Amino acid sequence: MALTVAPGPNDHTVRSFDAELERLSNTVVRTGGVVEAQLAGAAQALIRRDSVLAAEVAARDVDVDVLEQDIQDHAIRLLALRQPVAEDLRQIVGALRIAGDLERVGDYAANVAKRSMVVNQSPPVRVVAALPRMLGLAQEIVKEVLDAYVERDVDRAVAVWHRDEDLDALHTSLFRELVSYMSEDPRNITACSHLMFIAKNIERIGDHATNIAEMVHYLVLGRPLRETRPRGEDFLPDPGSLPDPQV
Amino acid sequence: MALTVAPGPNDHTVRSFDAELERLSNTVVRTGGVVEAQLAGAAQALIRRDSVLAAEVAARDVDVDVLEQDIQDHAIRLLALRQPVAEDLRQIVGALRIAGDLERVGDYAANVAKRSMVVNQSPPVRVVAALPRMLGLAQEIVKEVLDAYVERDVDRAVAVWHRDEDLDALHTSLFRELVSYMSEDPRNITACSHLMFIAKNIERIGDHATNIAEMVHYLVLGRPLRETRPRGEDFLPDPGSLPDPQV
Repeated sequence: MALTVAPGPNDHTVRSFDAELERLSNTVVRTGGVVEAQLAGAAQALIRRDSVLAAEVAARDVDVDVLEQDIQDHAIRLLALRQPVAEDLRQIVGALRIAGDLERVGDYAANVAKRSMVVNQSPPVRVVAALPRMLGLAQEIVKEVLDAYVERDVDRAVAVWHRDEDLDALHTSLFRELVSYMSEDPRNITACSHLMFIAKNIERIGDHATNIAEMVHYLVLGRPLRETRPRGEDFLPDPGSLPDPQV
Repeated sequence: MALTVAPGPNDHTVRSFDAELERLSNTVVRTGGVVEAQLAGAAQALIRRDSVLAAEVAARDVDVDVLEQDIQDHAIRLLALRQPVAEDLRQIVGALRIAGDLERVGDYAANVAKRSMVVNQSPPVRVVAALPRMLGLAQEIVKEVLDAYVERDVDRAVAVWHRDEDLDALHTSLFRELVSYMSEDPRNITACSHLMFIAKNIERIGDHATNIAEMVHYLVLGRPLRETRPRGEDFLPDPGSLPDPQV
């Protein structure tokens, strides 16, 4: 019963706790690797109009969910048995939060794949080429923020955090393009509606990457990232007048 | 330094810890109240095409964010200082997760309000009447699940959990209606695109309510809700063949 052990750490408990924290962190990084692969697969499925690959990507989402559940269970066990404080506590809370964001990114990748299967039931839309570009950028941003987490590198985390703006800009122009395609030919409307949601999902992936960047900042420095969070203006008629809908 | 205190609880620590847990739970409930008000405001803004009210709802989202941050800070303090286990630990983790879901629901309500301001820049679309109905149902579901949390009532939580299906059904039919409006008149396309995102946001609110229902089940019984989560089929051409994109 670890709980009946006196809280004063001895070398042995300290060593094994560090090992536990490292194992937790490694599972988070592994989850990130699976999520990156899911984003790459979703991009390929879109480019090649490959519904078989899309179905595989959608099916693999459960792997990410299982990894997140493992991280949660492990983190809660550590909180209960080790009574961590200060940086140790931040490492555990940070792993929990980052895993949650990665799980959402995985959901978005699976959603992109599922919607691409629907889009493939209509004739190709030229604009679709811009989406893999958006996905590629999202994938880079996710990779960068995971590297920042592995290195506990705050500067790198802050740099990624700003890159989200590029994704928002791509999203805004793509939305406008999709609206004009719909107007040109009503037969494009169903496909373009799903493409709009795909673009929005990719833009959201960037928001989760910025959450992870903020968490890296918090778990290394123990204080939140104070600057205002970069937000795309979304495709609003007068961007200046309205903040990004965010969701 | 509470951390240097021996872990064996005496009546005093136990009593004050219970008071802390109750305070945490009350903040979660208060957050839920603010979120319900946000949903009601967003519905009114849509019905009355009231952009001033919409801007107020959008601006108030920060209140929900602040409450969630308080809950997080308080929960982490309790984890660090009290080393809770078993049900106490579940109460704290549950409060953290539920607050996170409520914060997302608040984001969606604010997003609905912001998009309604954009929609108001185009002539009214008849279909918009279905959206406040969807919002009303979402609001009911959120209220129900918060009551289930207050009462720690598992049966009630499971009942709400199933009601999410009604919201998914409304969303599916609304999406189809919006596509046909866009086809009828291209001038509707921009407004209808935002209405599609509004409808999707409301559908997502239902998903977060089901998350909360699952968390109530977990924190009362200590085990996850095992049934498969209800998922709307989303507006896919052959609902049977494809699962709900979920996001």
